[in-house]
Amino acid sequence: MAAVSAAVASEPVPLVVQKFGGTSVADPERIREVADHVARTKRHGSDVVVVVSAMGKETDELLRLAADVSKVRPGRELDMLITAGERKATALLCMALHDLGVPADSFTGSQAGFITDSTHSNAKITELRPERLKKAIAAGRIPVVGGAQGVSAETHDVTFLGRGGSDTTAVALAHALDADSCELYTDVTGIFTADPRLVSSAKRMAKVSFDEMLEMTANGTPKPAMRAVEFARTWGVRLHVRSAFTWEPGTWVQEEDPTMEQAIVSAVVHDTSEAKVTVTGVPDEPGIAARLFRLLADREVNVDMIVQNVSDHGVTDISFTVPHEHLEAAREVTEALKDEIGATGVSTDHEIARVSLIGAGMKSNPGVAATTFETLAAHGINIEMISTSAIRISCIVREHQAEEAVQALHAAFLG
Amino acid sequence: MAAVSAAVASEPVPLVVQKFGGTSVADPERIREVADHVARTKRHGSDVVVVVSAMGKETDELLRLAADVSKVRPGRELDMLITAGERKATALLCMALHDLGVPADSFTGSQAGFITDSTHSNAKITELRPERLKKAIAAGRIPVVGGAQGVSAETHDVTFLGRGGSDTTAVALAHALDADSCELYTDVTGIFTADPRLVSSAKRMAKVSFDEMLEMTANGTPKPAMRAVEFARTWGVRLHVRSAFTWEPGTWVQEEDPTMEQAIVSAVVHDTSEAKVTVTGVPDEPGIAARLFRLLADREVNVDMIVQNVSDHGVTDISFTVPHEHLEAAREVTEALKDEIGATGVSTDHEIARVSLIGAGMKSNPGVAATTFETLAAHGINIEMISTSAIRISCIVREHQAEEAVQALHAAFLG
Repeated sequence: MAAVSAAVASEPVPLVVQKFGGTSVADPERIREVADHVARTKRHGSDVVVVVSAMGKETDELLRLAADVSKVRPGRELDMLITAGERKATALLCMALHDLGVPADSFTGSQAGFITDSTHSNAKITELRPERLKKAIAAGRIPVVGGAQGVSAETHDVTFLGRGGSDTTAVALAHALDADSCELYTDVTGIFTADPRLVSSAKRMAKVSFDEMLEMTANGTPKPAMRAVEFARTWGVRLHVRSAFTWEPGTWVQEEDPTMEQAIVSAVVHDTSEAKVTVTGVPDEPGIAARLFRLLADREVNVDMIVQNVSDHGVTDISFTVPHEHLEAAREVTEALKDEIGATGVSTDHEIARVSLIGAGMKSNPGVAATTFETLAAHGINIEMISTSAIRISCIVREHQAEEAVQALHAAFLG
Repeated sequence: MAAVSAAVASEPVPLVVQKFGGTSVADPERIREVADHVARTKRHGSDVVVVVSAMGKETDELLRLAADVSKVRPGRELDMLITAGERKATALLCMALHDLGVPADSFTGSQAGFITDSTHSNAKITELRPERLKKAIAAGRIPVVGGAQGVSAETHDVTFLGRGGSDTTAVALAHALDADSCELYTDVTGIFTADPRLVSSAKRMAKVSFDEMLEMTANGTPKPAMRAVEFARTWGVRLHVRSAFTWEPGTWVQEEDPTMEQAIVSAVVHDTSEAKVTVTGVPDEPGIAARLFRLLADREVNVDMIVQNVSDHGVTDISFTVPHEHLEAAREVTEALKDEIGATGVSTDHEIARVSLIGAGMKSNPGVAATTFETLAAHGINIEMISTSAIRISCIVREHQAEEAVQALHAAFLG
């Protein structure tokens, strides 16, 4: 059969990688719906490779089980445990496909050829040998691959790529198999100009550049996973972020199109997951900031924004933001260092929010910052910290004013 | 460390394989208790290899999930799904062991070296290459192996050895690693002379021969799995069946000890899982029974006891027993064949029970059958079918009389 159709068809068959997140396969009914969609794609003439995450909240449930069993959670065992979730999802989706008369085979990360390093729970892909998948595709079958998993080159142990790793699995497969597109199915219908729960006039973007998408995920947009977007940019894999509930076309994430005029501001995003630490009265001497941030790095505190005020009479203030869950460690490190460096005080604040404007067009439009500050001032919103990149302006504001800030900025730039 | 103790110790370290069934690891608390027992065994100077089944009723739950997703359940996918259960249990038990300061590593069937044929859901072990386990043991670690799983030699797919397959995994490992004992931990304290729920005076047997154990499992004793006992007999692996709830010594299953006098009857067991089919008025001609049982085999009906009455005027009755779940298929096959072979009728009966006496000493004690029949007659219990082996007598009786029959026979032979 395959030989016959290959002989008849002059056009090569397009290949689509379709990735389904946990909410997309949360229960038997959803799994059957996904199978139906995959089967349709196949019947419309495309080869398909599917990547699935664990069902619903299963990863969280497995972690809770681990916490109930033991105080220690060695990485090797945690990865063995967690990857059981995707394994179940792949097998069940294959059964649902068989039920529709579509031949499909499940593959663990190892079987799919994902070779990784040995960094458990956050493994990096070092090599991809998708020979078994290629064979399955050539035989007219649909490979269904467990997301976010692999096998370590050194010890042949099961490894987990981390949260959001299924997106990375999909992008890596799209690249290795030279797929025509990589569809990331999720529970939202695409990428929006602002969180639609906050801004009723927020619009779904038809497309967004890799750079803008990276700034958005780094500044509060939950999906797709940043690492996957980085891979996609590196490898030039176009992503289509869309809904597994409405199945309508979503947002394309792709290279900037140089022939089109760019919107000055593409989106307004916000993030309330961080807290602020301020060290006051720091002597303005070389090496002091370096010492502070080295110690924070040693404690694996994830420092994000850093702002140092202009020196006043030889002393300065240093403020930085960290994820809420790192605040306690950051406070300890800073307090311990205070006397040594001769600082006068340390304060922490977890009621902050970061509001960011993202837009590739900012590069050639210097007026954006001024309009941003004017808009916030007109709403009586005080800016506590500012940080910018070529295509982003971020302001730290009071958490309770975040919603109003997003709405005001969206109205000012995106209508 | 290992090198030092090896130099000091003149005796080799004993090796114990410990297998824990689903009820033994049903929840986090039970998993921690099992870890505690394994850790004790290790601290008392033994090397340990652990085999675990899926937690509690997880295998059933996975099968229910599969039924909710799809009408078809391809073997390859079913095995991928089901083996996720043991995978979770191995990882969690390892975490619990780490928590106690005992280094342990989880292994899937594939990682443990179980190579099988491609008969999904009922795969046979064709080769065992436990190199990774040996390395872990030599490093002072405890390997925890997922029960009932392997990888197919031909297609490198995940395979499941079937229900009770964890016992087989344990026995195969005990053989391949030349272990000093193989402990099968379950929810009963050993093998009893009769079901203790029926016979209050039933005693736990200190030991039982492989042959007796095989007859017992074939005739209603649920554990250990028959296939594992067959392997243990073939390879001469002594089994210790004991409780993971009381941890007290249980029953040894081993070679018959020719120096000891054998009990005439070792146990009275019963089985209510079968139904009876009777074909009446069958012409007593060569080939007719053969045709019937070939057709039944083709429908995968599992026929157990077969009794053919003495021919009377050239016609005879054929009765056979099948598991309840095969009764409908057996009736269809027999009804369809009735006219072709000129039989006069087919009747089915699912209210039967089989009561069996097992004892290696029966071989040299011809009076057992007579006492059996007398005992049942004295209780007004009618015998509907009889079947015997060298060490077993089985009688089919009415299901509602099974309990009385077991009690009467236990009283007559075992006191």
